[in-house]
Amino acid sequence: DFPLKLSENLFSYTLLMCSLCFGYIFTFVTLREWVAVESDSIQPRLRPEITRMMELVAKRLSALGATVKMINMNFPQILDGQSIPLPPFILAELGNDIQKATVCFYGHVDVQPAKKEDGWKTDPYILTEKDGQFQEKSSMPVNFKFIIEGMEEAGSLGLEELIKEENESFFSNVDYVVISDNLWLSNTKPALTYGTRGNACFSVEVECCEKDLHSGTFGGIIHEPMTDLVALLDSLVNSSGHILIPGIYEDVASLTEEEKKLYEPIEFDLEEYKNAIGVKRFLYDTKEEILLHLWRYPSLSLHGIEGAFHGPGIKTVVPAKVIGKFSIRQVPHMNISKVEQQVISYLEEVFSKRNSPNKLKVTMPIGALPWVADVNDTQYKAARRSIKRVFGEDPDLIRDGSTIPVARMFQNITRKSVMMLPIGAADDGEHSQNEKISRYNYIQGTKLFASFFLEISNLHG
Amino acid sequence: DFPLKLSENLFSYTLLMCSLCFGYIFTFVTLREWVAVESDSIQPRLRPEITRMMELVAKRLSALGATVKMINMNFPQILDGQSIPLPPFILAELGNDIQKATVCFYGHVDVQPAKKEDGWKTDPYILTEKDGQFQEKSSMPVNFKFIIEGMEEAGSLGLEELIKEENESFFSNVDYVVISDNLWLSNTKPALTYGTRGNACFSVEVECCEKDLHSGTFGGIIHEPMTDLVALLDSLVNSSGHILIPGIYEDVASLTEEEKKLYEPIEFDLEEYKNAIGVKRFLYDTKEEILLHLWRYPSLSLHGIEGAFHGPGIKTVVPAKVIGKFSIRQVPHMNISKVEQQVISYLEEVFSKRNSPNKLKVTMPIGALPWVADVNDTQYKAARRSIKRVFGEDPDLIRDGSTIPVARMFQNITRKSVMMLPIGAADDGEHSQNEKISRYNYIQGTKLFASFFLEISNLHG
Repeated sequence: DFPLKLSENLFSYTLLMCSLCFGYIFTFVTLREWVAVESDSIQPRLRPEITRMMELVAKRLSALGATVKMINMNFPQILDGQSIPLPPFILAELGNDIQKATVCFYGHVDVQPAKKEDGWKTDPYILTEKDGQFQEKSSMPVNFKFIIEGMEEAGSLGLEELIKEENESFFSNVDYVVISDNLWLSNTKPALTYGTRGNACFSVEVECCEKDLHSGTFGGIIHEPMTDLVALLDSLVNSSGHILIPGIYEDVASLTEEEKKLYEPIEFDLEEYKNAIGVKRFLYDTKEEILLHLWRYPSLSLHGIEGAFHGPGIKTVVPAKVIGKFSIRQVPHMNISKVEQQVISYLEEVFSKRNSPNKLKVTMPIGALPWVADVNDTQYKAARRSIKRVFGEDPDLIRDGSTIPVARMFQNITRKSVMMLPIGAADDGEHSQNEKISRYNYIQGTKLFASFFLEISNLHG
Repeated sequence: DFPLKLSENLFSYTLLMCSLCFGYIFTFVTLREWVAVESDSIQPRLRPEITRMMELVAKRLSALGATVKMINMNFPQILDGQSIPLPPFILAELGNDIQKATVCFYGHVDVQPAKKEDGWKTDPYILTEKDGQFQEKSSMPVNFKFIIEGMEEAGSLGLEELIKEENESFFSNVDYVVISDNLWLSNTKPALTYGTRGNACFSVEVECCEKDLHSGTFGGIIHEPMTDLVALLDSLVNSSGHILIPGIYEDVASLTEEEKKLYEPIEFDLEEYKNAIGVKRFLYDTKEEILLHLWRYPSLSLHGIEGAFHGPGIKTVVPAKVIGKFSIRQVPHMNISKVEQQVISYLEEVFSKRNSPNKLKVTMPIGALPWVADVNDTQYKAARRSIKRVFGEDPDLIRDGSTIPVARMFQNITRKSVMMLPIGAADDGEHSQNEKISRYNYIQGTKLFASFFLEISNLHG
């Protein structure tokens, strides 16, 4: 394994695979160059790095022979009252043979904040692998399209608008949409993903006054915003992981016997999973319960607090304005607007019982829908065959507890078949310190894509 | 008012006053030079700045004619298993006339973390006032001693040991100990302080595993450390400011009718106080209740969380290790070791009810005792007369809700009379963004010290 921050999704596979088909050389040198770009979409000051990353992608796609369009959406992001322009999107086409299937790849090149101080053993923006190259030449079994964005980690701003705008043009002749932005369930057995949870991200702001106060000079006589906020956050979920917001579970699809049976054959070693992350005990004891709660039930996580003291040591301050961050993973058939209302109403009710004079503001800056696909679509069949060929075994048919909002977005708007083809192993440490991908997975992944294009060209039509 | 970070305490008054007595010139140029030093004792990497600040002080005291000793205590601070040496202490003497009273000034030159991003309108380390100078010459009515440290904001490490070591030597001929490290109660009426609260600072660490986790990949199946921590913090204090730790109030001195009467004449405008900080409503409605809860009852404040996401925007991470920071202000006759045990036992009990497999660690890195003095001591009389002379009115006799642990430390070890002589106004914004001191208070403060030395030389003996 080598340390690697692969723009989180595995978009580079696609390019590596195209390089294979065309005889171009996509080496680790290029990968290193891409990994080095700090295309963090969370921090506004790094926005120029995303644009730079998009330009690198455009250059590479052009070199492969693709027609590349950079598209600037008039969809500014509003942060602290300031309007920040979005980075461009890329729409690209490679091949236009009406006899062939057209496969559209969605990818994103932005990353989450990563710093060496967070606990990375090596610089997250430096790749350290040796070169490798591929020179075989073959014809192109399908047409390719690419849609690339740089704001996925910040909620895919403007993407939905772009897909809608391009639905009758760019997407009109697309047959299949492929996304590779998630992981296998096991460290060794491949998987194919037919569903993801959505995510509703919330900010809870409590403010007493303009300036931070000294806890000696004011402690004991004021309603402290931190005390209010901590009570609000504590009211959201209990120690069993059960969400306490009234009505939150009422639209969750009930579990049928048929669906329950899908979980039995899945290869999933609870002990291994526990050891991989180092927790002593999960909230549930059986494989089925664990997978059900990861994939098809909602969960609530508290991420942190903005505005309070967060350094080492002690600072005896009473912060004037604190903003709690939490998210609720969404599953079919939760209605995200209804969830937003349930959360706001509940927190306002909890707050009103505290009789605090402070100001409360609850917002949902990001609301991403869940997605479920039909595993009998043509491209799923092609992918299952390819996985069997390349890895020598049938894939687990899995869902993913994390959120790739575009899956649902593509399905809803384009009505095309959407598939997620994961390449990374379960222990890759997605969104975490020392995220990596193994060389084995990286190479087999390119072979899988090549095989997939051949299979789909056979099955299509 | 000019923006000023005055090393939080008003130690520079003392030097300004000495300069007056001796005809030396202590100008704002020096003050600017001192303010510019980032002598932050919370962040270990800034430790060299404290040492540099101590050297500036030593130089200035020497220039005034004082005998200056820099003392290195063999009392390393242990942070994250690493031993960090303390900055030096200063002991200085100016005058040794056995006919005169000897007044010892305690001061500290370290500050709390302050950054422009925190909301300071100007750089906290740049002073922007014009020069001013004083050239009158007069004889010295008392002997001076100085004890200066650079680690007050980090718990005055090593100071207690130094005072004990020097009790029979440096302190043997000291008559009065003076500290000027707090504020008036009002924006305009001077005050004299006879008591301060102590502070017990706590860290609550909850850890699930080594690496941060993705909330999509693990949300719903693990006991999240943030959820545990927020529940622990929420169990500490209710929305009325009442501390929920069993037994915490049992050693608090009961309020006698006589003590209650002391509060009636104090000038304190609740509306003005509320407006100055901008809160809509306090926890109590009357002046007496507010002052009692600020000065002679404990309070609990939540300061923040280390290890969780704290930036703007959303990061959908499940932090692996989070550390909550809170403090409990101490009053007579609370026993700080008993408080430590009560907090640890209570949090362990709350945690055990959650049935969480995570690791809990509760520590009390700082424990500072409260202090109360006898307002009929000679130096209190001298100070009351001087305040009347300089400001034209009798001072409020007040206590302070914040913590100057050295007051209690000096009193306990040296058995000398300890007094706190505040100069700053209530709206100076202690420990907060845009902390300042008005030019009026600064100049009148120097006059008050000069007058105080004359009064004490009359009353002494």
